[in-house]
Amino acid sequence: MQAEIITIGDEILIGQIVDTNSAFLGKEFNKVGISIYQITSIQDDKSHILKALKEAEENADIIIITGGLGPTKDDITKHTICEYFNDTLVEDKAVLANVEAIFSKYDIPLLEVNKQQALVPSQSKVLMNQNGTAPGMWLEKNGKVFVSLPGVPYEMKALITEQVIPKLRAQFKFPYIMHKTMLTYGLGESSLAERIEKWEDKLPNFIKLAYLPSLGRVRLRLSGKSFDKEVLKDEIQNQVNLLLPQIEDVFVGFEEDGSIEAVIGKQLTIAGKTLAVAESCTGGRIAESFTANAGASAYFKGSVVTYATESKVKLLNVSEADIQKHSVVSKEVAEAMAKNVRIVFNSDYAISTTGNAGPSKGDSDAEVGTVWIAIATKDKVYSEMFNFGNHREKVIGRATNKAFVMLQKEILKK
Amino acid sequence: MQAEIITIGDEILIGQIVDTNSAFLGKEFNKVGISIYQITSIQDDKSHILKALKEAEENADIIIITGGLGPTKDDITKHTICEYFNDTLVEDKAVLANVEAIFSKYDIPLLEVNKQQALVPSQSKVLMNQNGTAPGMWLEKNGKVFVSLPGVPYEMKALITEQVIPKLRAQFKFPYIMHKTMLTYGLGESSLAERIEKWEDKLPNFIKLAYLPSLGRVRLRLSGKSFDKEVLKDEIQNQVNLLLPQIEDVFVGFEEDGSIEAVIGKQLTIAGKTLAVAESCTGGRIAESFTANAGASAYFKGSVVTYATESKVKLLNVSEADIQKHSVVSKEVAEAMAKNVRIVFNSDYAISTTGNAGPSKGDSDAEVGTVWIAIATKDKVYSEMFNFGNHREKVIGRATNKAFVMLQKEILKK
Repeated sequence: MQAEIITIGDEILIGQIVDTNSAFLGKEFNKVGISIYQITSIQDDKSHILKALKEAEENADIIIITGGLGPTKDDITKHTICEYFNDTLVEDKAVLANVEAIFSKYDIPLLEVNKQQALVPSQSKVLMNQNGTAPGMWLEKNGKVFVSLPGVPYEMKALITEQVIPKLRAQFKFPYIMHKTMLTYGLGESSLAERIEKWEDKLPNFIKLAYLPSLGRVRLRLSGKSFDKEVLKDEIQNQVNLLLPQIEDVFVGFEEDGSIEAVIGKQLTIAGKTLAVAESCTGGRIAESFTANAGASAYFKGSVVTYATESKVKLLNVSEADIQKHSVVSKEVAEAMAKNVRIVFNSDYAISTTGNAGPSKGDSDAEVGTVWIAIATKDKVYSEMFNFGNHREKVIGRATNKAFVMLQKEILKK
Repeated sequence: MQAEIITIGDEILIGQIVDTNSAFLGKEFNKVGISIYQITSIQDDKSHILKALKEAEENADIIIITGGLGPTKDDITKHTICEYFNDTLVEDKAVLANVEAIFSKYDIPLLEVNKQQALVPSQSKVLMNQNGTAPGMWLEKNGKVFVSLPGVPYEMKALITEQVIPKLRAQFKFPYIMHKTMLTYGLGESSLAERIEKWEDKLPNFIKLAYLPSLGRVRLRLSGKSFDKEVLKDEIQNQVNLLLPQIEDVFVGFEEDGSIEAVIGKQLTIAGKTLAVAESCTGGRIAESFTANAGASAYFKGSVVTYATESKVKLLNVSEADIQKHSVVSKEVAEAMAKNVRIVFNSDYAISTTGNAGPSKGDSDAEVGTVWIAIATKDKVYSEMFNFGNHREKVIGRATNKAFVMLQKEILKK
């Protein structure tokens, strides 16, 4: 059983927003055994929406449509779906009450156009939106399910997890889909592939392997699908057991527990340890990545972004003589930053970065792409130098990833 | 003339990665007058790729295909395109030399599989990839252009801006597409729509209006397309001039100069002013947003993330008595943070945030979603309290956006 995602909105096609909804939908649907056949992003245009609905109905059993449900004139999804189903719009009392409650809570005047949010196709079952005025709408045709949802990410997400997925599971029986992703660092995609070729050739045909290279890491993903959960689980575990000894030197962890920073966060929380960060070239990205996860306050003490050279001296007691002698992008400065930020925040671990993300050279003579990363604990400090190339986005991203890997290695030493 | 984007990769459909390539392509193509008809994301599956190519050929004149060009077995795009064009693969000497040069530069052993990166369809024109081993490939059929590009974002981006777009412009004449996006803050989408309804109804039919609400802001986008650049430009400017007086109280700027933080960065750089940031609930997001832009070192002095309460006292001299009396989420603490971080970094402006992003209450008794934001200059400090709801992602995002808006208002006062 397959699903197709249709995301509607000119803002996606002109690149004004990045479509993050589809990735969320892909992940959540996979968890419950629904494969995504295709993601189709189209304009707020009636004939195009009708064409996409027809094609999706041919390709898939479940069609999820997001976007175009706002109260303004450019939002035409609801009327177009109504036309596709040859249906008429009727007012839903419960939706109207929800709209009125939202406007009264925030003390905003309720306009006629807002009341129209309560109009839904007569054949649809309403999925009440707790976070906004546009309801989700569930329609069926020839055994196929169409669900129209608002495009606002947190509204769509709540509707999917709280209503759409439970309803789909009640109505259909899905196979079990399992992914197991291993994170490696330090070996190129093709060298890794050559090393594990014999193992890969012997994979059973219900398990697929994918290589996902990105900013210095390669993720190896095993994916399988079966109605027999135990057989699938055992076989994937068996394959992982066969693989791990071959990649021991480059393996840094599994991904299904979340991103590497989320995994580090859990490890620190369980161990009752804390972290502080001093960033220069990564500019807050490391701190932001940790604190984006709920529960970060259990282990994340804080961080400094010492972007200007003078702030490295003032906030982190980096020696001016060291900066003069070795430059701000140096082993000495990186290590002093890590050592002192750990003391300032009184944490168990600290990470620091100092480097040049480009495009110009900044406060240092270091080549664009040169980054020093240091790790400090209560009894030691050490660092490594890297060159991450000459794209700002790539340098910041790779330095951040590498800092996570170095920290995780240090944490796992205990 | 329209383009279709086909992004290939199981990792997109299972939600393991967010497809950011399509937004980049949409933006760059729009700049030169090429509309995107549709974005289609599909699996690494031969029959699905062939089907998508056929449909795209029917829908569009230019087909951009990204992904699936790696050296490993799961990458099948090149062979499938070759089949679609009924062509054979031949070795390209220049591509082989490029592959060899990359491996020799990084001193990595060159494997047989890497050499296969030099195989291209015999009908294709090679677009040399300066940042990786997989070349871009340009093919034509019945006057339609197909371009296959690697999925690695920085490789794809360089190929698009340096080779694909110049080549398309040399071959075709495109109309002029113009977008003008106005950023508003503080009025809901439907109230805004009602206020400007009369103006909207009188828009000429070659100009479209879209409302893009997101985390407290509504972006108003005017889009037009014409072969007469001057007519289009004048009419959009004319409409903006008619609109602005009606939204004066909520208008915070135009978006085409980049994100609001990029605009602030430019304003500060031109004025020779500097910025420091003290973040609690936003956890580094504000700093990260500024420093993601090249040139940030001209105005961004640095920041602290004082996540733990003790660090607010130690690093920013926030009074313990104030914390006891008013809690860490309070006007007093926010203002002390902004005032003192400005002094610590010796900057002209400072922003601070302190609040509770949830899901649990953390170090404060403040309700989840409560955030204080303060702005400090050399001669004053002030703050505002907000409630940004109860989703962590939403609270962090809205607090960050609001901080940008408050800072920009302060900067524009001069």
